[in-house]
This record gives sequence, C-alpha cells and structure tokens, in this order.
Amino acid sequence: MAGAEAADHNNGDREAVDAVIAKLAQKFGNRLVTSRAVRAQHANTVTWIDNQPPDAVVFPQGTEDVQEVVRLCAAARVPVIAFGTGTSLEGQVNAPRGGVSLDFRDMNRVLAVHAEDLDCVVEPGITRKQLNEHLRDQGVFFPIDPGADASLGGMAATRASGTNAVRYGTMKDNVLALKAVLANGEVMTTGRRAKKSSAGYDLTRLLVGSEGTLGIITELTLRLSGIPEAISGGVCPFPSVEACCRATIMTIQSGIPVARIELLDVLQVRAVNSYSKLGLPETPMLFLEFHGTDASVAEQSERFGEIAKELGGGPFDWALRAEDRTRLWQARHDAALSCKTLRPGAHIVATDVCVPISRLAECVVETQRDIADSRLMAPIVGHVGDGNFHLTLLVDMDDADEVARAQALSQRLVDRSLAMDGTCTGEHGVGQGKMKYLKAEHGEPALAAMRALKRALDPLDILNPGKIVALS
Amino acid sequence: MAGAEAADHNNGDREAVDAVIAKLAQKFGNRLVTSRAVRAQHANTVTWIDNQPPDAVVFPQGTEDVQEVVRLCAAARVPVIAFGTGTSLEGQVNAPRGGVSLDFRDMNRVLAVHAEDLDCVVEPGITRKQLNEHLRDQGVFFPIDPGADASLGGMAATRASGTNAVRYGTMKDNVLALKAVLANGEVMTTGRRAKKSSAGYDLTRLLVGSEGTLGIITELTLRLSGIPEAISGGVCPFPSVEACCRATIMTIQSGIPVARIELLDVLQVRAVNSYSKLGLPETPMLFLEFHGTDASVAEQSERFGEIAKELGGGPFDWALRAEDRTRLWQARHDAALSCKTLRPGAHIVATDVCVPISRLAECVVETQRDIADSRLMAPIVGHVGDGNFHLTLLVDMDDADEVARAQALSQRLVDRSLAMDGTCTGEHGVGQGKMKYLKAEHGEPALAAMRALKRALDPLDILNPGKIVALS
Repeated sequence: MAGAEAADHNNGDREAVDAVIAKLAQKFGNRLVTSRAVRAQHANTVTWIDNQPPDAVVFPQGTEDVQEVVRLCAAARVPVIAFGTGTSLEGQVNAPRGGVSLDFRDMNRVLAVHAEDLDCVVEPGITRKQLNEHLRDQGVFFPIDPGADASLGGMAATRASGTNAVRYGTMKDNVLALKAVLANGEVMTTGRRAKKSSAGYDLTRLLVGSEGTLGIITELTLRLSGIPEAISGGVCPFPSVEACCRATIMTIQSGIPVARIELLDVLQVRAVNSYSKLGLPETPMLFLEFHGTDASVAEQSERFGEIAKELGGGPFDWALRAEDRTRLWQARHDAALSCKTLRPGAHIVATDVCVPISRLAECVVETQRDIADSRLMAPIVGHVGDGNFHLTLLVDMDDADEVARAQALSQRLVDRSLAMDGTCTGEHGVGQGKMKYLKAEHGEPALAAMRALKRALDPLDILNPGKIVALS
Repeated sequence: MAGAEAADHNNGDREAVDAVIAKLAQKFGNRLVTSRAVRAQHANTVTWIDNQPPDAVVFPQGTEDVQEVVRLCAAARVPVIAFGTGTSLEGQVNAPRGGVSLDFRDMNRVLAVHAEDLDCVVEPGITRKQLNEHLRDQGVFFPIDPGADASLGGMAATRASGTNAVRYGTMKDNVLALKAVLANGEVMTTGRRAKKSSAGYDLTRLLVGSEGTLGIITELTLRLSGIPEAISGGVCPFPSVEACCRATIMTIQSGIPVARIELLDVLQVRAVNSYSKLGLPETPMLFLEFHGTDASVAEQSERFGEIAKELGGGPFDWALRAEDRTRLWQARHDAALSCKTLRPGAHIVATDVCVPISRLAECVVETQRDIADSRLMAPIVGHVGDGNFHLTLLVDMDDADEVARAQALSQRLVDRSLAMDGTCTGEHGVGQGKMKYLKAEHGEPALAAMRALKRALDPLDILNPGKIVALS
C-alpha cells in the first residue's frame, strides 16, 4: 500500500541483476541510483497493492540511453519499467520482479512546435503543465488534463483522459505518432505528422494504453488545439444525480459542444466546500465549461441553462470572471485531496469505471446505495459526459473488516459496470490492480489476443512484466 | 487492371481448395457461388493491379457462418477474404492466392440504436446510406462519408474517412467496439459501449485499418453524432491553391469547427462543371460546410468569408438553399466520375497521399508541375483540412509509355509526401498497391512489428494474405 517501506524482494536472479547494475553504473555514472529511498519513490501506487520498488533507477537523457538499458536488461532477462511522474493509480510503475526503472525526468524537452499544423513533438518526461506553459505564446494548447501534473509519456502509456475528454477526446485521440524502444532494443516510429493515415496497422494506438509493456516511449508527436477565443462556465445545482445525468444527455444530444461537464455527488460537494471554501449548496452539482467565440459560449451557456431549468436544476450562473473559474477548477482538481477532510487520517483508494451515459445515473445511484450499505465513505465525482466516474474510498487500513468491505465494494462496482456494458476502468488503466477484471470484461479470445500481441513484441517478457496481461 | 477478365490462377493446392469448396457447398447450398462472373465481381480494384478472383464466394448470414468458413479454410490452409461492397481502391479484395471471398451482402442489419448514448450496433454489410436512412428519424447520423456507398465493415477495415473527417474524425475515431472472427475461428469482442476505456490493449484500433488481415469483422458498435440543427455552406473561389490552403489553415487555427472543407484544382473544377453543370469560374475552389445552431453556422460562415477576402478569395456565398447544397455535394462526390469527361475512354487510377497541412500547398503545386512535366492528366481534389488529397489519373492503358510515366509519377508523389513528413495514403489503405511504400514510410523496425503482429494473430497467414505485410 502507499507509504509502505520499500522492501527487498526476491528478484529471481540476484546475480544477473547485480551484473546489469554494474554495467549500468559504468555507462551512466551518477545517473544510476540504487539507494533505498529513491527506489521506494519509484514504486508509488494508490490502490491496495504493496509498493514494489525496482532494483535500480536510471535517468536517461535520450533514446540511445533507453536502447542501452533495454539491451543490457534483455540480455540478462531483467525487467525494465518506464517511469514518468509516478502518478498512476493501479501499480503501473511497481516492480514486482525487480528490475530497472527508467525515470524520464531529464527527457523533458519540447523538440518542435508546428502551430500551423496544430502539433508538437516532445520528450516523454515533460509534464502537461510544462508543455502548456511552453505553448501559451503560440495560441495553442494540449487539452488532455487528467488532474495530476502527469508526464506526457505516462499519459500516453496509460491512455489518460480527464475533464476535457468530452470535447477533445483522450490520449488515444491526441497522439499523432510515437517513437518507442522495442524489447529488442530497436527504435520504432509509429507514424508521421500527417493528420491521418491508412498506411498499415495502427501501432500508435497499440502503444497508447499499453503501459510500457510493448515498448518504451521516447518521443511523442501530439495533436494541439487552438486556445479558445472565449471560455464560459460555472456550477449548476440539481435536485438529484438523475437530473444531472439527464441534463448531460440532453446537452450532448442537442449538439452543445460542452468542453467540460463534471458531476459531484452531495458528499463530494461537502468535501470541496470544506477544502476549497466554495460555499456551494449541498446538492448534486455539475461543473461546466464552454469553449468558443464570445457569441457561441453565450449561446451554449444559455441553452444549457434552459435544459437545467427544465429538469428542476439551476440557477446556472455561467458568466464567471476568469479568476472565479480558475478557483472552481482548482477545487475540482483538488476533489480527491478534499476528501481527506471528510475523514482525516484515512487512506485514499481511487478507482474508476465507465458506462454508457444512459446507464450512468442508475450506476451512480446503485453505487451510492452500495457504499451506504457497506458502511463506507466514498465521495463520487464523474466525467459525466463520458459516462466515467470515480470513487474516492476513504479507508482505515488498520481495520481488516473495513478493508474487506471496501474491496468487496470495488468488485461489485466493476461487476455493475460490466453488466451495464461498461468497462472496469475509463481512464486509470489496468496496471496490477485491474488485471483480474479483464477476462470478465473482454472474454477469453480477446485476452488471448492481448497475450499473443505481448508475446509477439516482447517475447522475453522484460517490458513492465506482470502488468495488463500475465505471461508467466 | 479493372475490367480484366477473371482468370484462373495457381492456387498452390488445387485439391485442398476443391475439398473446402465441397464442404462449403454442403453447408451453404446456394449461398456458395463459384461461377466465373461472380468470382470476377469480387476482385475489383482501381489501380494498376490485375483482378485476381477468389475460388468461391460465400454469403454468410451470421457470425457462426463466418466461423464455419474460417475453420474449414484454416484446416486446409485456404485464404479467406472479407468483402463489403468492393469499392476499395488498392486491391484489398483481390485473391492473389485464391481462396474464399466472404461477401457480407446479407449481413446488413441494424442490431440496436442507442440514441441517448449516441451509438448503434450494426452488421458489417450495411452501407452508410442504408444506415443513415435507418437513423434519420432518431435525430442522429453516422458522419463518415468516403464518397462511395461503402459497407461499414469495409470502411472500418480500411480506416476510411472522407469529406467530414476534418470535424468528425475517421473510422478510427468512430468505431467504439468490434466483434471479429479470428484466424482460429474464435469470436473476439474488442470493447464495450462505454465511450472510453483504458482496460488493456486497443484491439479495436488494431483491427480498424487492418483490411481483414488480422480478423474478420462481423459486428460493429459505432459512435453517432446528433444531426446538426443548422447547416450552411457553399463554394469559395481563390486566386491560387496556396490561397486555398492558407485560408484552410487560418480557419482551423482560429477554431472555426468547419465540417467540410474541400479543395478542387482548376482542372477538377473544369471537370465538375462539365459533368454536373455547376458553372463555376475556372479557378481553385473550396467547397465548404458548417454545422451548428442557426447563429453559429452564420457566425462560422461570416468568419470564413472574412478570411477568404483577406486572402484575395471570395465572394463566399454561404446561404445556399438545401437543394443547392445537395447538388453541390453530389457534384463533389461525383468528382472522380466527372474526370472521365476530360478524357473519354481513359482508365481511371485513383491515388491519395496526406501531408501536414502547412506543407499541403507546396505538395499540391509541385505535384501539378510534375503532372504537366509528365505529359499526364490528373485533376486534384483534396480533404484540405486534413492535408489529404487525391489524384485521379486518366491513363490510356494501351500506351505503355504513358502507363510508365503515370507509375513513375505515383512513386514521386509518395516520395514527395514522405519527404514532407506525410503518409503514402491518407484514406485509401494499403491493399496490394501500397505495400511497396511501407518500408520507406515506417522504417524496418515498425514493419517488423507489423509482421510480428500479423504472425501472432494469423500464424497460418490465411486472412487476406498478401495485403499490408507479406509473410511469405
């Protein structure tokens, strides 16, 4: 679990690992670190899973460094785990079989910005805030915002999305091409800067969401968007979660190109009130944002206000000043943190599912009832335009019975989502934590296909082994 | 070449093929056809490639039928080629090693429409016009429009796009999930109806664009869009191709969500004038369409008009009546056909490339010069918002020297596109015709990865062999 002491583990072949570390030390000098503290920092996870630190951490400065590490590790059958900022939630950066963590901290350059083509080329270690800071003067931005200031490499590897996805899509839609080091040490490029292509298998999309198990991303070509001329937005109270979901469906169906539409349940509203001093009425809420021209954001906002009113919601005050809007979205980003105020000292376990939007209200309400019946505390916040919602479970990890109830609840949440034609994770990824759900979600033939793909591209199982699909 | 007589070919193992056909006849009765005429119809291609008919055609009525065919063929190592409407352009439906063509004509049902979720589930044989006819009453539509009334299965398999892609994306963006029969005869589902997921490798995107070489699609879950409340659009003349491209870049950069923006060069304008009696001035043109509310399409149109004027283009008359707009887009769809009026009797060879939009003008102008220098005739039409353009080569196939000049031109077109960080095909796919360009485009490591994926999912090489990547 998070915060646990880094412990030495059984690496299978200690001699092989030591030999690799010796060679890496020769090559990388002080860019190879084996201290216990640094290793422990590279095994963060926000689930039930124990921290499993790597044997060593290397800080590469270019694609060739990554090739060198992969080749040395491949020869000795030692695992290689790509690491961005460590903000993944399902044990993606853990090292269950030891090995070398590749920390991309130093590979954080913007290599090119093509504003006319609305694309840029970056190294994987740059974070989304650093990138948008760099882009701002050129009138463009990178829209994907998972909340954490994650690295672009990590966001691509986990197919991240977040609050803007309802309008701008997920990482799958915003990566044009990748450069990646394969398990054999060769460098593959998966595409070019053309906006579309039908020239063969979609290697870009195969790597996006593969969590470092098929190749290690060393360069990304990203699709950018123009900074909108005008932004409007605000909060809108509703009498029920159902009314929030109904308003969202009507908004999307009527073609309003909403940029963000976020659901907070009553408990989550209480938490953000307490943490961010928003003073909102304690009722289900939508946080909204509209992008466009002055005229179009006004029209979108007014139309949404009419929909809200029709459903007993509102009033919708959308003409916020920029600083009030910033404060609002900061509060939304701090939602998970804010939950701590509800139960100081509790451990946070974050999880997410995603269902067809027509089933969302039902899924959220059943889950709220299940939380209450389970005598647990878990505020809900959702990217409601995508049918995606998050539970922030507040758990006393010293209470074995409570832990068991929380784990059973998580299992039922996934079962409920799958029964509604949904997925066990909308945006957190599989890592170690959700591997157990993949068979129920995809069925055995699809899972066998995933294993076959993994074996085809990483026959020695050295790239982030024990994540997504297990070969051994 | 198109229209050539169906010829019998060397199938490797005639006995095996005959044995499979005998078993298929038992199972499928008159849904198995081996007549020369029907076989020839299943080997259409619009390139330089000879027609290569299959040994037999089966008309499946459900996924189980497809499984049966694949299992019989796999046991005898006989190829299986999926067939939609036969409108692909690069030999995708050819049978270079013989085998069984699976014609999805009878699998054309809409299985479900979920208007609230903006999705539907269909069989692969339904065409886009049939689907949109079915959907119309529910206020939703499927936006991808490659021109031809292609089947949805074929459109997914070739990663089709077309005029609406600038706003609505390509098939990659509009397929939520697939059901497919694998080479081992098992049925795989690649996803669920949730709008997004990060639950493992993206099998959906791996199959989209794989041209039937990794699995045979038997069901598609498609993303739909709301029918826009208002549509505006029209034609806008420009003094040059450069001005057309510059206007497109400024339009997209300024955030105008244009739904269609199509370039016609002077020769193409002459052709559509002749064929569709449009009476347009003979100068480079953009055809445009805007979707939104009444107010927003007016605003978008006016803003585009200002951009056009700034670049010496216009006037832009955007307030067309619906019937005039229909006539305009019909003319755009008939652009390839219209080229025949420029040189009656000539054979049409269609090809496409796609480059970053900032390089498009340069690429088109250099290509026009190359066409003239090569003493060839080839109007140009382009999905300019994507940087994607088409050449319609009008070739006298009896003139060997002209054929050689046209082939050399095609090679230079691809070289030019790749040199500009573009792709050898934006939307036509690889088939047989563009296999030779993939190494230059992707590099050997990516091509080796594609071969490894093919081998992993189709180790016997029975699914549409000899397309995209060659295993033998």
